[in-house]
Amino acid sequence: MIEHYQSIIDQRIDEFILDNSSKKDFEIIKYILDLKGKRIRPSLLLLSVDIFNGNVNYAVDQAVDIELFHNFTLLHDDIMDEAPLRRGKQSVHLKWDTNRAILAGDILFAYANSLMSKCSEKHLANILKIYNKTAIEVCEGQQLDLDLEKRQDAEIDEYIEMIKLKTSVLLACALKIGAILSDAEQKDIDLIYNFGLNLGIAFQIHDDLLDVYADDHSFGKQLGGDIIEGKKTALYFLAEQYANDDQKRLLNNSELINNSKKRIESIINIYDLLDVKQKVKVVQQQYFTKALNSLNELSVSEIKKEKLVLFADNLMKRTY
Amino acid sequence: MIEHYQSIIDQRIDEFILDNSSKKDFEIIKYILDLKGKRIRPSLLLLSVDIFNGNVNYAVDQAVDIELFHNFTLLHDDIMDEAPLRRGKQSVHLKWDTNRAILAGDILFAYANSLMSKCSEKHLANILKIYNKTAIEVCEGQQLDLDLEKRQDAEIDEYIEMIKLKTSVLLACALKIGAILSDAEQKDIDLIYNFGLNLGIAFQIHDDLLDVYADDHSFGKQLGGDIIEGKKTALYFLAEQYANDDQKRLLNNSELINNSKKRIESIINIYDLLDVKQKVKVVQQQYFTKALNSLNELSVSEIKKEKLVLFADNLMKRTY
Repeated sequence: MIEHYQSIIDQRIDEFILDNSSKKDFEIIKYILDLKGKRIRPSLLLLSVDIFNGNVNYAVDQAVDIELFHNFTLLHDDIMDEAPLRRGKQSVHLKWDTNRAILAGDILFAYANSLMSKCSEKHLANILKIYNKTAIEVCEGQQLDLDLEKRQDAEIDEYIEMIKLKTSVLLACALKIGAILSDAEQKDIDLIYNFGLNLGIAFQIHDDLLDVYADDHSFGKQLGGDIIEGKKTALYFLAEQYANDDQKRLLNNSELINNSKKRIESIINIYDLLDVKQKVKVVQQQYFTKALNSLNELSVSEIKKEKLVLFADNLMKRTY
Repeated sequence: MIEHYQSIIDQRIDEFILDNSSKKDFEIIKYILDLKGKRIRPSLLLLSVDIFNGNVNYAVDQAVDIELFHNFTLLHDDIMDEAPLRRGKQSVHLKWDTNRAILAGDILFAYANSLMSKCSEKHLANILKIYNKTAIEVCEGQQLDLDLEKRQDAEIDEYIEMIKLKTSVLLACALKIGAILSDAEQKDIDLIYNFGLNLGIAFQIHDDLLDVYADDHSFGKQLGGDIIEGKKTALYFLAEQYANDDQKRLLNNSELINNSKKRIESIINIYDLLDVKQKVKVVQQQYFTKALNSLNELSVSEIKKEKLVLFADNLMKRTY
């Protein structure tokens, strides 16, 4: 199912790149969009259109828009996080330079705004309301993320709030826009939004778990990357909550261990001692259950609901 | 007249900052918006509303939006240009850091999009069309600017194209949005846009002239700043066109002169020998005349036209 949406989206993105290929700045935009990724957000938008019996062709521009917006945030986040790699390839700010990465991000954001407006006038105001609100929230989420990295006193609730803004609202926004474009009822529009919000949180927590506990063959990158980067994840926050003073010292100063393999081992050792994997899974399951509860209340057929459950299950089962 | 608009705009910007003052990232946004500047772009929008007998109160959000968008570009441009100062104060990327300047710019852009949508549905699609097109063009203008700085073979026409995108289209967009919000006729909407486009080019060339030939008391900053920064301006491009080989060598390698005062003197000496000031004024006057021609064709009263002429004249007469 998702493969079908991915191919529709990839085709439209290819057209978008082709239409603009004479522009010099498009080499960067082509590079980042060609890295592909899983196209989860635009696929969710098209899935939502399907669920509410809308017209998928009518919604493709908005789906692509969500992907352009997402890639704008990746370009700027990678600069701020000094990330060397994006989807296994060199980050734009290193392959070109910071200035061009800033500018390519700005241009992507500008194109995203432009594509978003390409819908019938009867949907325009509603769609822009949620899209513009979401864009502000995603930027605020990145701000919170930068702040959390610097603080020692943050708690898991603040982390959840951060990933809600930085990650979830865009998934929820994609689903909501699909519902609006399909003339769904307001109650269903709100339910699908809440479904996306809680699914997004569970999805991000799953990412955190994968970094440490993935099967390293299918994961395709080194396990413990977050630990090496000193990135604070759901695992870190729950460990912090239950750790004794010695463990806390290590959690917050793991960079003192020179050997990166040993550093990962010692942090995972703390996680295991504190049963952090299980505790994180409990939190994740709470959000996943909330998502499913919203889904159950939707006034659509069971077959349609099954499609959403399947998509959500696949997100939670992915091993990379 | 402009003071009246400025005060309406400043009041609305103050409200905007107050509404969001609890948000941490707003200290930067407050800083950049408090630096004020001349509020030329939003004033032009409100002036256009006045010219076409629209409702100024109805258009204030869009006017403020244009100012937010403009400030977003300033934040990111200052990073790319490594500018130490903005309106006489420390640039955001130096007072805070590059990450926060990138993010504050992104947030301003997101808020600008959000404010832009706050108008009646009958105007929304038309306004977004020109606003989104302009946002893309402004980013492309910055890209062209970065490219021009690196090239030795560029000509004045490319420079004009660059300042058209980087500066003029936003002035023209502000005027056009004012006209759309006032239900002006399509012919007048196009004319006021062309007026802005040509006025914007003349306005930027005026800026280039001021950097070298301003009365240095009212200018308030050191003359020849563009020369010291090695910035390519209309003066540079016209000098390049008429210079002999020795002069070209100096124009393109002025940094070889260690003493900055001597560097400015020697470049101005070339400008004077080649009569560059006069040549630049001829080019500027061509665009100013084009702007006035569009203005004359507008189907509004002579009194309204006079207001626009007065505003344009003041822009061209400003000494700082």
